[in-house]
Amino acid sequence: MRIVQKFGGTSVADVDRIRNVAQKVKREVDAGHEVAVVVSAMAGTTNQLVKWTNDILKAQKYPDPREYDVVVSTGEQITTGLLALALQDIGIPARSWMSWQIPVRTDDAFAKARIESIRGEEMIADMKKGVVAVVPGFQGVTAEGRVTTLGRGGSDTSAVALAAAIKADRCDIYTDVDGVYTADPRIVAKARKLDRITYEEMLESASQGAKVLQVRSVEMGMKHHVRIQVLSSFSDAPGTLIVDEDEIVEKALVSGITYSRDEAKITVVKVADRPGVAAGLFGPLSDANINVDMIVQNVSDDGKTDITFTVPKADKERAVDCIKGLKASIGYEAIKSDSNVVKLSVIGVGMRSHAGVAQRMFKTLSDKGINIQVISTSEIKISVLIAEEYTELALRALHTAYGLDGE
Amino acid sequence: MRIVQKFGGTSVADVDRIRNVAQKVKREVDAGHEVAVVVSAMAGTTNQLVKWTNDILKAQKYPDPREYDVVVSTGEQITTGLLALALQDIGIPARSWMSWQIPVRTDDAFAKARIESIRGEEMIADMKKGVVAVVPGFQGVTAEGRVTTLGRGGSDTSAVALAAAIKADRCDIYTDVDGVYTADPRIVAKARKLDRITYEEMLESASQGAKVLQVRSVEMGMKHHVRIQVLSSFSDAPGTLIVDEDEIVEKALVSGITYSRDEAKITVVKVADRPGVAAGLFGPLSDANINVDMIVQNVSDDGKTDITFTVPKADKERAVDCIKGLKASIGYEAIKSDSNVVKLSVIGVGMRSHAGVAQRMFKTLSDKGINIQVISTSEIKISVLIAEEYTELALRALHTAYGLDGE
Repeated sequence: MRIVQKFGGTSVADVDRIRNVAQKVKREVDAGHEVAVVVSAMAGTTNQLVKWTNDILKAQKYPDPREYDVVVSTGEQITTGLLALALQDIGIPARSWMSWQIPVRTDDAFAKARIESIRGEEMIADMKKGVVAVVPGFQGVTAEGRVTTLGRGGSDTSAVALAAAIKADRCDIYTDVDGVYTADPRIVAKARKLDRITYEEMLESASQGAKVLQVRSVEMGMKHHVRIQVLSSFSDAPGTLIVDEDEIVEKALVSGITYSRDEAKITVVKVADRPGVAAGLFGPLSDANINVDMIVQNVSDDGKTDITFTVPKADKERAVDCIKGLKASIGYEAIKSDSNVVKLSVIGVGMRSHAGVAQRMFKTLSDKGINIQVISTSEIKISVLIAEEYTELALRALHTAYGLDGE
Repeated sequence: MRIVQKFGGTSVADVDRIRNVAQKVKREVDAGHEVAVVVSAMAGTTNQLVKWTNDILKAQKYPDPREYDVVVSTGEQITTGLLALALQDIGIPARSWMSWQIPVRTDDAFAKARIESIRGEEMIADMKKGVVAVVPGFQGVTAEGRVTTLGRGGSDTSAVALAAAIKADRCDIYTDVDGVYTADPRIVAKARKLDRITYEEMLESASQGAKVLQVRSVEMGMKHHVRIQVLSSFSDAPGTLIVDEDEIVEKALVSGITYSRDEAKITVVKVADRPGVAAGLFGPLSDANINVDMIVQNVSDDGKTDITFTVPKADKERAVDCIKGLKASIGYEAIKSDSNVVKLSVIGVGMRSHAGVAQRMFKTLSDKGINIQVISTSEIKISVLIAEEYTELALRALHTAYGLDGE
């Protein structure tokens, strides 16, 4: 088997932890596998590097992203060399491969680049001889040979892209949680760790606020059919495998319930209910780079309607200011906004073929006296917006209602 | 004019100092010059990186030099990006060039590599457009594309090699001293800064303990006729220019007096005075990687002689142990060793054509009652070993005797 292992910043935070990582790599090598390891920077290093690129500026507000990338990419390079040394020290042949040596080609969107191709012939040849390849995550090199970074969290994407490129049988993402849960176990004591979950469910979970894996890495895994395992650096328990739907025999109706507190609700009151009003409202918000998520429009009354939608909490003020500037063009009576909301999402590929999933959600919340403010659905997800104070109550009730409770 | 500027670790120790360096670069750009800048790692960074490569090892004693180089070379890469940002911030177009982008080709003696060639066509084209090139010192890349470092102090060599490769008119080495002095000004208050000094004198000074420039960088400057200027990062005073002998009109008899406390004296007492004894003694020392410097052999008496020589202070015990093992093969009566010695050297290209230079040294020391223990000479240098306690007295007396005293 050929395996890619990825270790994040807390897993390589100091030399002792890097030695611990070397033991996890050794286990796979001892099992006869060919191994490539993708590493993040030691925890804290990237923040220090980013800080320097800002502190150095007096006149300019933002650093040139090309030079930013040169500085910030060094963090992972340090870890690759140290892990190669730690592996050699326990008798495992290993070498580091810089992005430009492999090469990992990206586009030239510096500081937020996307991987375009990974050749890696020489690296694979070396792996076939039993040498572990240690690769810096989060970075690449343009066709012109300049250093790029993929943006924060990009190391997950690096690992999955590498796994796809070298046709690895599995991509193990080691983190500080030991897998994907049916709900946040800090809130729902009866939450269970899932053995398997589909790419689509994982994708919905990631975009609905679960922070286990970066969205782009899951997309890439789905596209290239890379079996991704999420597991803990600090225990030996098996994790959660993210796979194609046909690899899951017993499909649960609902695989998990997520929540996101990063939402704010805005209502534009008594807008004229005529064509072009929605475009006149959401166009300027999009131009201002404000991401609108859930949208609901009331039934028209006297040719007027209310439009309610959510935006990231951090963008609430900017969104309200933006809409104030639209008073003349779209016409409305008032703007109301509320940050004390939470979005709950019930996710599961099983709901494609089952009716009544949404109804069970609405009834459960209603039974607890919780008012639903906004609803949105996709093929495998139902999301509702409720008052934030009900977060824990609602999560636990839904977890029980969908039969997810463990022992 | 095309100029290379080199800034050491204390000159780029933090973001404020890097901004200060940017001003020094701006001055040359404003004067209409094309500029390439070679930088060291921020002071302390390299030590931290080296420490990690050692701390990570439990079983092995030394890190694999290839991975050591990957880790340690990141220090300068950080500084290049930060200086490029600082230059852009004050309106100077600038970009960083990694060793593998230029490329700076070295041999594959990892951790102590030697520069073989620097192409730099693309970089020169960029410089001609008015873009300052910022280059990491102390590193390069092998023909196979692996990262190397040049060994400690290698940034000076990087700068001079780059200056030679891009045919720079001058290579300015910015340090924490403001030039080359006739003697160490901390000891000799009347020491003067030299406007000019020849490569050969500088080379002798460097190998005799003056720590202004790395020996290899001076050798390279001499070989490629690179005009090197040593000057201070922290003042605006002109420094000392290191040039070919024919660029110096008024040649002084003696240009400077150096001292080295890094010497220990060993005497092997009553060795048989027969062919092969010296080889039998110095061969094994050389095999043990112990550098023997001055050597003197007494006149034979009864077929026996004493051999006295110096080794680096740090190697004294190892040298004595080594000689103990030779008792059977070369035969001697006793070994004596002494660390309380200092080597004084009088250096000057003028002494090639003048007699009496050595005599003046011997007389001056004799007048002060200082006993000379060992003498060695080269074409432009006379060195003597004396008891360490006389260091200051001897330095000042010689400085006056050779007419070097300033105001």
